Amino acid sequence: MVCGLPGIGSVAWLAVNHLQKELKAELFAEVFSPMFSPKVWLTEDGVVKLMKGEFYFWKNKGGGTDLLLFSANEQPYSPEGQYELADVVLDLGQKFEVRRVVTMGGMATDKFTEQPKVYVGGTDVALVKEIEQYGAVKLAGGAITGTNGLIFGLAKPRKIPAICLLAETPGYLSLDANAAKAALELSCKLFGISMDLHALEKQAKENSEAVQRAKDLSRGAYQHETKKGGDRELPYVS
Amino acid sequence: MVCGLPGIGSVAWLAVNHLQKELKAELFAEVFSPMFSPKVWLTEDGVVKLMKGEFYFWKNKGGGTDLLLFSANEQPYSPEGQYELADVVLDLGQKFEVRRVVTMGGMATDKFTEQPKVYVGGTDVALVKEIEQYGAVKLAGGAITGTNGLIFGLAKPRKIPAICLLAETPGYLSLDANAAKAALELSCKLFGISMDLHALEKQAKENSEAVQRAKDLSRGAYQHETKKGGDRELPYVS
Amino acid sequence: MVCGLPGIGSVAWLAVNHLQKELKAELFAEVFSPMFSPKVWLTEDGVVKLMKGEFYFWKNKGGGTDLLLFSANEQPYSPEGQYELADVVLDLGQKFEVRRVVTMGGMATDKFTEQPKVYVGGTDVALVKEIEQYGAVKLAGGAITGTNGLIFGLAKPRKIPAICLLAETPGYLSLDANAAKAALELSCKLFGISMDLHALEKQAKENSEAVQRAKDLSRGAYQHETKKGGDRELPYVS
Amino acid sequence: MVCGLPGIGSVAWLAVNHLQKELKAELFAEVFSPMFSPKVWLTEDGVVKLMKGEFYFWKNKGGGTDLLLFSANEQPYSPEGQYELADVVLDLGQKFEVRRVVTMGGMATDKFTEQPKVYVGGTDVALVKEIEQYGAVKLAGGAITGTNGLIFGLAKPRKIPAICLLAETPGYLSLDANAAKAALELSCKLFGISMDLHALEKQAKENSEAVQRAKDLSRGAYQHETKKGGDRELPYVS
Repeated sequence: MVCGLPGIGSVAWLAVNHLQKELKAELFAEVFSPMFSPKVWLTEDGVVKLMKGEFYFWKNKGGGTDLLLFSANEQPYSPEGQYELADVVLDLGQKFEVRRVVTMGGMATDKFTEQPKVYVGGTDVALVKEIEQYGAVKLAGGAITGTNGLIFGLAKPRKIPAICLLAETPGYLSLDANAAKAALELSCKLFGISMDLHALEKQAKENSEAVQRAKDLSRGAYQHETKKGGDRELPYVS
Repeated sequence: MVCGLPGIGSVAWLAVNHLQKELKAELFAEVFSPMFSPKVWLTEDGVVKLMKGEFYFWKNKGGGTDLLLFSANEQPYSPEGQYELADVVLDLGQKFEVRRVVTMGGMATDKFTEQPKVYVGGTDVALVKEIEQYGAVKLAGGAITGTNGLIFGLAKPRKIPAICLLAETPGYLSLDANAAKAALELSCKLFGISMDLHALEKQAKENSEAVQRAKDLSRGAYQHETKKGGDRELPYVS
Repeated sequence: MVCGLPGIGSVAWLAVNHLQKELKAELFAEVFSPMFSPKVWLTEDGVVKLMKGEFYFWKNKGGGTDLLLFSANEQPYSPEGQYELADVVLDLGQKFEVRRVVTMGGMATDKFTEQPKVYVGGTDVALVKEIEQYGAVKLAGGAITGTNGLIFGLAKPRKIPAICLLAETPGYLSLDANAAKAALELSCKLFGISMDLHALEKQAKENSEAVQRAKDLSRGAYQHETKKGGDRELPYVS
Repeated sequence: MVCGLPGIGSVAWLAVNHLQKELKAELFAEVFSPMFSPKVWLTEDGVVKLMKGEFYFWKNKGGGTDLLLFSANEQPYSPEGQYELADVVLDLGQKFEVRRVVTMGGMATDKFTEQPKVYVGGTDVALVKEIEQYGAVKLAGGAITGTNGLIFGLAKPRKIPAICLLAETPGYLSLDANAAKAALELSCKLFGISMDLHALEKQAKENSEAVQRAKDLSRGAYQHETKKGGDRELPYVS
């Protein structure tokens, strides 16, 4: 099961969204709730859409792992709502007897990088070590706030092995496709599935070029300060 | 069923209030709840009134559509309360087997217009197209916040066809009778009922004259800026 | 039943407190609840006291009306908590089959007066008229916020006749014994009981002298502005 | 039963933490709840930890009083959550038929002292007097906010004798081992257990030296003002 709600850089949301589209996973359940904002959206056709969470199912025709996906168009606005939604997601996960839960997020580093690191936390040491083999860096301390963190954490007392992948993102990008791609590549290795990441790569390249142009413009006037030892620091994460 | 809670320009509230008075619809149910503000009102006679929602019923003696009306003297103050009230309204609507739910609201445009457009969103494409025939403009995107939006949106998973009509209102009028009249005219066409709109027209005329006087006063000192392409923009809506 | 929670000038709280002491009414029930602040108090003996509501009973040995009293050391901090407490109070009142509920409060007028008016609102016109005969002034419009208002208002759908008495208070006094005395005198007439108001009178006299001294000090430097027609205005009430 | 949640100077948390480690008390129950912050922590091994409360049990092999300990990594963020957690703790205490509940806290005095006084409040006068014999000072008035105060206060209607110990702490120390030691010494006398306080003493000594260095630096430039009669004042307590 892969879960990704909007957060810093929309990393998790972009990753799960890409996964759903590429796999053509099917929507099979929706969550409406007062834990979401009191508003509705309209499509281009003038048709109403509620704030909601969505569950998708992908039948792996190759015989490997099937996948459940969960996403939502926002995180619940109240702390209680975030706990409640995390429980709803894990309840459904347990009904489907998911073997592993992967949540994702962005780790704001305040600097752009072409090759974002992906940090990993897990419900036990063995899991963390397994993901380190795929290239992730152990998240040795710090806090993860929000629903992506709670789904991950609340899996532990339920005895569901869970992993949280946090891709480096500068924090000033609202949609960081580069970070989403990095988190997604790791997830795919983990589930043993291959995936066309072309769409994310294209969007990531555009991000990169835009950041470069912005840097060129500001050179001379603004010397970008890189924090020393930034890799070891654990900044705000969502 | 027509629902209108206070919001921008009090458009929906004015419209439902007018409808109730003209049709002489009868009060048959009240909603008291902690989701409203912790206060009470007094009438001129010194008699207490609670914050509440009110349901009215109108028996169409001409044999056409009967009408349920819902209004309240405020929107619930908490997000959860707004969801809760929307569900209370729709529960009662379903008991009466309403065939259509119409909610209304104002769309703040920051400019006064004598002939406000009425935008429409619906629970499906066919409904939107039907209302477009009566002169409404499709609301192609954007968000509707608050209880008027939630009653509309939550009708969808209940399979009740629902429409939201948003009349242009400058945003600085607390009671925009002109916008209410525009929304109400459309509703009447939709339900096939005719209605004396004289009281709203009178109030609208007074509004219009007051705005004109204010413009005359400020001319020279203040050049009113009209936003280009304002019709396509979707500003804050409630 | 007489109810008085802390509010502007602590009018209601002072009045019910005096009533309880003079009548030697007995504590028979307490309300502890998360709707109160998360703190405790200590007495001079170092013994803990919880935030709470208290119900007192007075057996009228003269054969007239018995009295239930309710007070609390604060109003619930959340809107929902205020509704909840009002319902708890009325539930218990109904168990005791109280015939009338009187709540009190202060009406902030921003000026000190030796003979504060007492305004009255009621659950029906006849009640208001009855209290006007005792010297109260009809509260012809306006809002009453907080728990004192809600106990009064929520009595109406329960079909319990209820009265709210609001004594004028300058708003800058935290304990206005003069206003409390005015509200209490009216209540006593209403219930046909006589009462020694000496303690409140003494405290009121001290208030009055302190206000006079403050005025003497500021004369010349500060011309107190009296609002014209202030009696007809309905300022913030709690 | 000894309870200590984080608060001013982390006095209670430090004391219970030391108690648990020195006694090697065993973790036997955890409380997860939406009343805690919506976030998770990671260990140095990258393993997730939830926000939670923890219950420890110590079997007194000497045949004296066994001990239940309770701590948590934060106080619930909402007032309702603080009441809820206090009830959860007392429910479990009652199941184990605890004979006494001791909660602790810091009393911010705005000045550093090598020998912090420990103030005591209790559920009855006899208890307070008993603890005064061990050197505590009666807390004659004032309020105690937060969960440490509520566990103490809510024990009273449950008829569980309870004590709250508040050690003086300057308020500017985030971890005041000196104050924790003072509160803990008193608790140990109360339960008739002896304890190695070496670790707290070492940390306290470091605190003391750091404060002395800061004072030396600021002498001349900054004359520390001591509040007269500070012992009788009851400042903010948590």
